Amino acid sequence: MANITKKVSWSSRGDDSGLVGEGTPLLNGSEAPKQSRQLSGAGSVFRIGRFSTVDLEEDITSEEDPIREQPKEIPHNEKLLSLKYESLDYDNVENQLFLEEERRMSHMSFRCLEISRWVICGLIGILTGLIACFIDIVVEKLAGLKYQVIKEKIEEFTEVGGLSVSLILWAVLNSTFVMVGAIIVAFIEPIAAGSGIPQIKCYLNGVKIPRVVRLKTLMVKVFGVICSVVGGLAVGKEGPMIHSGAVVAAGVSQGRSTSLKRDFKIFEYFRRDTEKRDFVSAGAAAGVSAAFGAPVGGVLFSLEEGASFWNQMLTWRIFFASMISTVTLNFFLSIYHGKTGDLSSPGLINFGRFESDSVAYQLYEIPLFIGMGALGGLLGALFNVLNYWLTIFRIRYVHRPCLQVMEAMLVAAVTATVSFTMIYFSNDCQPLGPEHTEEYPLQLFCADGEYNAMATAFFNTPERSVRSLFHNQPGSYNPLTLGLFTLTYFFLACWTYGLAVSAGVFIPSLLIGAAWGRLCGILLASFTPNNPNWADPGKYALIGAAAQLGGIVRMTLSLTVIMMEATGNVIYGLPIMLVLMTAKIVGDYFEEGIYDIHIKLQSVPFLHWEAPATSHWLTAREVMSSPVICFNRIEKVGTIVDTLSNTSTNHNGFPVVAQVSDSDEPAKLCGLILRSQLIVLLKHKVFVELAQSRLSQRKLQLKDFRDAYPRFPPIQSIHVSQDERECMMDLTEFMNPTPYTVPQDTSLPRVFKLFRALGLRHLVVVDDENRVIGLVTRKDLARYHLGKHGLEELQLAQT
Amino acid sequence: MANITKKVSWSSRGDDSGLVGEGTPLLNGSEAPKQSRQLSGAGSVFRIGRFSTVDLEEDITSEEDPIREQPKEIPHNEKLLSLKYESLDYDNVENQLFLEEERRMSHMSFRCLEISRWVICGLIGILTGLIACFIDIVVEKLAGLKYQVIKEKIEEFTEVGGLSVSLILWAVLNSTFVMVGAIIVAFIEPIAAGSGIPQIKCYLNGVKIPRVVRLKTLMVKVFGVICSVVGGLAVGKEGPMIHSGAVVAAGVSQGRSTSLKRDFKIFEYFRRDTEKRDFVSAGAAAGVSAAFGAPVGGVLFSLEEGASFWNQMLTWRIFFASMISTVTLNFFLSIYHGKTGDLSSPGLINFGRFESDSVAYQLYEIPLFIGMGALGGLLGALFNVLNYWLTIFRIRYVHRPCLQVMEAMLVAAVTATVSFTMIYFSNDCQPLGPEHTEEYPLQLFCADGEYNAMATAFFNTPERSVRSLFHNQPGSYNPLTLGLFTLTYFFLACWTYGLAVSAGVFIPSLLIGAAWGRLCGILLASFTPNNPNWADPGKYALIGAAAQLGGIVRMTLSLTVIMMEATGNVIYGLPIMLVLMTAKIVGDYFEEGIYDIHIKLQSVPFLHWEAPATSHWLTAREVMSSPVICFNRIEKVGTIVDTLSNTSTNHNGFPVVAQVSDSDEPAKLCGLILRSQLIVLLKHKVFVELAQSRLSQRKLQLKDFRDAYPRFPPIQSIHVSQDERECMMDLTEFMNPTPYTVPQDTSLPRVFKLFRALGLRHLVVVDDENRVIGLVTRKDLARYHLGKHGLEELQLAQT
Repeated sequence: MANITKKVSWSSRGDDSGLVGEGTPLLNGSEAPKQSRQLSGAGSVFRIGRFSTVDLEEDITSEEDPIREQPKEIPHNEKLLSLKYESLDYDNVENQLFLEEERRMSHMSFRCLEISRWVICGLIGILTGLIACFIDIVVEKLAGLKYQVIKEKIEEFTEVGGLSVSLILWAVLNSTFVMVGAIIVAFIEPIAAGSGIPQIKCYLNGVKIPRVVRLKTLMVKVFGVICSVVGGLAVGKEGPMIHSGAVVAAGVSQGRSTSLKRDFKIFEYFRRDTEKRDFVSAGAAAGVSAAFGAPVGGVLFSLEEGASFWNQMLTWRIFFASMISTVTLNFFLSIYHGKTGDLSSPGLINFGRFESDSVAYQLYEIPLFIGMGALGGLLGALFNVLNYWLTIFRIRYVHRPCLQVMEAMLVAAVTATVSFTMIYFSNDCQPLGPEHTEEYPLQLFCADGEYNAMATAFFNTPERSVRSLFHNQPGSYNPLTLGLFTLTYFFLACWTYGLAVSAGVFIPSLLIGAAWGRLCGILLASFTPNNPNWADPGKYALIGAAAQLGGIVRMTLSLTVIMMEATGNVIYGLPIMLVLMTAKIVGDYFEEGIYDIHIKLQSVPFLHWEAPATSHWLTAREVMSSPVICFNRIEKVGTIVDTLSNTSTNHNGFPVVAQVSDSDEPAKLCGLILRSQLIVLLKHKVFVELAQSRLSQRKLQLKDFRDAYPRFPPIQSIHVSQDERECMMDLTEFMNPTPYTVPQDTSLPRVFKLFRALGLRHLVVVDDENRVIGLVTRKDLARYHLGKHGLEELQLAQT
Repeated sequence: MANITKKVSWSSRGDDSGLVGEGTPLLNGSEAPKQSRQLSGAGSVFRIGRFSTVDLEEDITSEEDPIREQPKEIPHNEKLLSLKYESLDYDNVENQLFLEEERRMSHMSFRCLEISRWVICGLIGILTGLIACFIDIVVEKLAGLKYQVIKEKIEEFTEVGGLSVSLILWAVLNSTFVMVGAIIVAFIEPIAAGSGIPQIKCYLNGVKIPRVVRLKTLMVKVFGVICSVVGGLAVGKEGPMIHSGAVVAAGVSQGRSTSLKRDFKIFEYFRRDTEKRDFVSAGAAAGVSAAFGAPVGGVLFSLEEGASFWNQMLTWRIFFASMISTVTLNFFLSIYHGKTGDLSSPGLINFGRFESDSVAYQLYEIPLFIGMGALGGLLGALFNVLNYWLTIFRIRYVHRPCLQVMEAMLVAAVTATVSFTMIYFSNDCQPLGPEHTEEYPLQLFCADGEYNAMATAFFNTPERSVRSLFHNQPGSYNPLTLGLFTLTYFFLACWTYGLAVSAGVFIPSLLIGAAWGRLCGILLASFTPNNPNWADPGKYALIGAAAQLGGIVRMTLSLTVIMMEATGNVIYGLPIMLVLMTAKIVGDYFEEGIYDIHIKLQSVPFLHWEAPATSHWLTAREVMSSPVICFNRIEKVGTIVDTLSNTSTNHNGFPVVAQVSDSDEPAKLCGLILRSQLIVLLKHKVFVELAQSRLSQRKLQLKDFRDAYPRFPPIQSIHVSQDERECMMDLTEFMNPTPYTVPQDTSLPRVFKLFRALGLRHLVVVDDENRVIGLVTRKDLARYHLGKHGLEELQLAQT
């Protein structure tokens, strides 16, 4: 959040922009900034709250009793970029302390570090796998119990009448589970809402999302997802695994838990953003891998979302974590299922075996697949647009936790009611074969020995429904059932995504797609009555699922590989790739992917792969923030404290200059120091005078910075006496003496590339005499994006 | 090759280092530098030949009749780094011309460009697939013919005696094919020797290897590989596909062929290193994909070897090219095999279907697999060490083309003889089943209805032998046969790799590994006589193949995925990963991978992923080249011509400074200009005086630079009159005004990271007043590597 004092040329960022965004709650139930109290004292241009100035992973005010005084209706403008989000420091701070440590280390120590990295990745894999296993077993037990109870009731009442009792039972059961899930999310940890994929995308992109990788988040996520899946919502348990894996990684790699106040004194070397982010990549990959049984897909997901820089060893480690995770899950599930050692269920979702002989495709089907891809893109865009409007509505009107809980319960009840109604009015009876695969076949009004096909889709966990759609015999569903199911489930899923519950959108998307895909297969086959076998409905269900999922999430290579791995069959590579590509092209024409929409609505300064194509006319001079507050190499403590405490300039990076002359002339750059470093220095009172008087004083070490990482105390908690204010601080040893710089004429794409490739947080702009004239941060770059009418510029706001 | 005038502190780089390397031929038969004639005039420190100073993709002297006067024995020192190799400019030159062009372009033009990129990738895929198809069909036809003829002869002579006649026939046939293959490689295009993977690795790493992506190379490669495979050498046709794909990509993306003197006037925007390298990545991926039927593996190969920076759209395009390539191959092969539309042979090598039921593995087998991985690592290291010695021997004694051809013929004859002897003395007779899969079953001395099992392995193309080892029924081979086969084939393959023929090492490695893997399976099963079925020999053959291949080439993620895709079965992911990981760890302990060995022996300045771990004590000041020759913004033509013509300072990048003062004081940096740009400027005589006198003179455009790319003429070919020498040149418009810079205290890892992440060629080192004090190039960084005894420094030589 460095240096937001912009040149006056930036219009429309006056007082009101600060006010417009203020108080807007984050998506997914994240709490609104709570600094309205402090605003009275801040007469600054941007009215930035005092406490938001602190570079904390945890919002410091959460310790206090927050005063919740949110307006009833909150205006929201998506053309904003929040100043609330900090960047991660993916670039190492190579100061003297760091270099000394590195130089002291022998070759053997580096090798040991490398081994610990592998060990950590192994642990990440194992823990992620265990969590996935836990979720799977608990969901299966609870859902089994629930469906068993309801089935009995339904069967009981089918004969005697009074089915509405079983409907009420169903609705109440669902609502209860969902209520528990929504309460823990809305009241305890709002960041655990949703699938967590947008949050992890942002984290891997280099944005620090508060509380996203904390233990509490993990607990809420895990129990929340169990509740929402058991509660029968149109959700999946796969997306949250990715978030869970990331939290596990962040925890394990730091060798301590700040929440539990335990420090194991291990892995201290990894206590910085660079290393942590690498491990979080591995965790996310392990999560994908456990969710879909797709280790390669997991690696590609991490790289696609996060990689600034591809490194062979890093990738290999990520792959190791992925592989361990899927094998752990598989192994424990095999024990649970009583088939120890049978490694056939590598993921939470199992698409089942696609035998290549039975469902090989012919070349002439490729155009059909592409058509289905286009349809998937259209439906996906529709889904996203509807969800976008819904989200805007939620931001404005449904921001209180109790409202959020009530909405979630409502959705749960409606889901149950709709399902029941659909099943009730459906007359699609199918014979119950001898080796029927239905878990809970509902007979209802069907003849004996038959079951209700609509119930296969609704009265089941979504994972099972997907598998039934892929693998049930041709003729198991009649077209009307599938059509109605698609229609209702589409709207239910769309309504559900964005609720304050922890749940993913992958499985509902697959389910919708599988339903209309199967419908397509059936319809296609009916056009050629003399050869009805060419269009295997299972194959078309798979293609439809891929199209719908691609149309909603718009992932590319990673999704192709995930689907390929989940089907366990490589020959589907081409059709899946074509379908995903078409769905993405068609969908992108109308609307962004669902994750990008939600990231944008959260006003996160997200950096895409490349600068907008038409941004060559912008140079560093235009995008940078200026003037910049600089410190001298040897600076007065009072100046530093005042600058850090100044609520109007909550900068996080300060160029260090050789000597600020008395004139307004900018001075020569000689380093860069971070707010967090200054805080540690102030806390340890590393003042020049003290060092002279107390010779025995311990020299500040890298360890002190690592111990404080990542929750540095706010400046307000540090007491500096009046005498100490007059002391001097020598920053030479602690500043990064070689920050990357660019001349002021550098074009935006060039700045962008440097920033993105190196994962920078601050980039100093210098003139041709190496004098500081500006600073580029993530927000300066993220502000420009390509809209419908060419290059657009987002406003910075304090939302 | 910029600025090699080092500070005197670099010892052991005096006159003799220049002499030591001089005349050493490159590996793979690349010709020796031919500038010994010119050396008489160059009294410089490094004795750099006049012509090697030119930044050409094609060595300019190849037009002349080369004087071949190589010494009989050539000393070679692997602790050298060749100055002969230039870097690619992966960083865009953002000069005024470029920025003006970009700014003129509308959003629609950028979209059109994006579409052309996709079209090009599609073309690359199609052409690569067609080439693979061509190679496959021709090899199959010719090899079939050959084996048929020999088989008939053998059968004829088995009865009547005189089998030596058929041996001679076999040896002569083999030698003839190999002779043709070796002649075209050794005499026409030596760079086409070997698999081409080291060369493509270097290219993707950013090193310009002369003539590596030329049409002539492609032709020689394709026909060379046909000859060597048909000639019965222990080689595969897969590696060369990667090189072929890369050449196709380089050709297609430029929209012209310099060799054929055709310019189609399309894709002119892509005529620069940045774009070309992206396309070459796609081509290499398409090659892998066609070779192994592994589109995802292809993408990962490209990224693992080449990616400086992962970009989602680029990756997606690469994947598209890969997918198209394997589908094209598959489609045309299906037509050829008379099963149009049956997409079941996606690659040149087909591992056949691994049914997961029959060869599922149990958890307790994992340690066995790891043990096999270790064995593969050991055998791989042995292979590499032997091949390393052999290569040193070849560099010293076998460097004349005719010697190379003779060696290749010798190897072909020996291979035939050894095969024949092995078959002759083998008494492993197996019954010929009713649905036998042997292509050429040799009965020889077996009873009627039986065939010789040794012949299955030797008397066959290596691809078929691999498949037989994977899939033949348990009991098809007896252990002695497999042991003998492993032993002989190991040495044959080791001897063969590095010959002046175009051929790959993948298939021989797989074959060796499959043989000893199957042997392991048989032996393991024999330990448990009461349950001999648990160790399916086919499964162990697969693991052994992975272990051996991993031990030799040491690829990581990409190889895992390639193997997974080639088996068509995802469940082998874990064992293959573990095996490859073990093989790599064990192998790396002894010796590098085969490709890295060959790259090192070629003294290529290859940049690995990260700087050596213990290099933090080095800073830019130590690694940079200094002093640097700079130009003024407005510079005298004479000075430029003299500097460019100076053979002792064959720099390629020149910092442009504000004003060189008369004193020795370095001047302030204001840009960077390349030799190639200056050459174009001189050729078009863009002199300030001329511009004033002839107002109508056409302004130099980006197109002029693109037309000259990539074969810029040498400075000697440009005539500058005495009058013109007095003119001035204004470099402002053409120089890159915003080169990346680092302060002189920047640590080597930091410089390295910047260099590698952005794909730089020149990095200017400045002091704190922004004055030029040095220049870092690829060779300055590649010089440092981690040896057995800590950080080692390679010498720069003109090899």
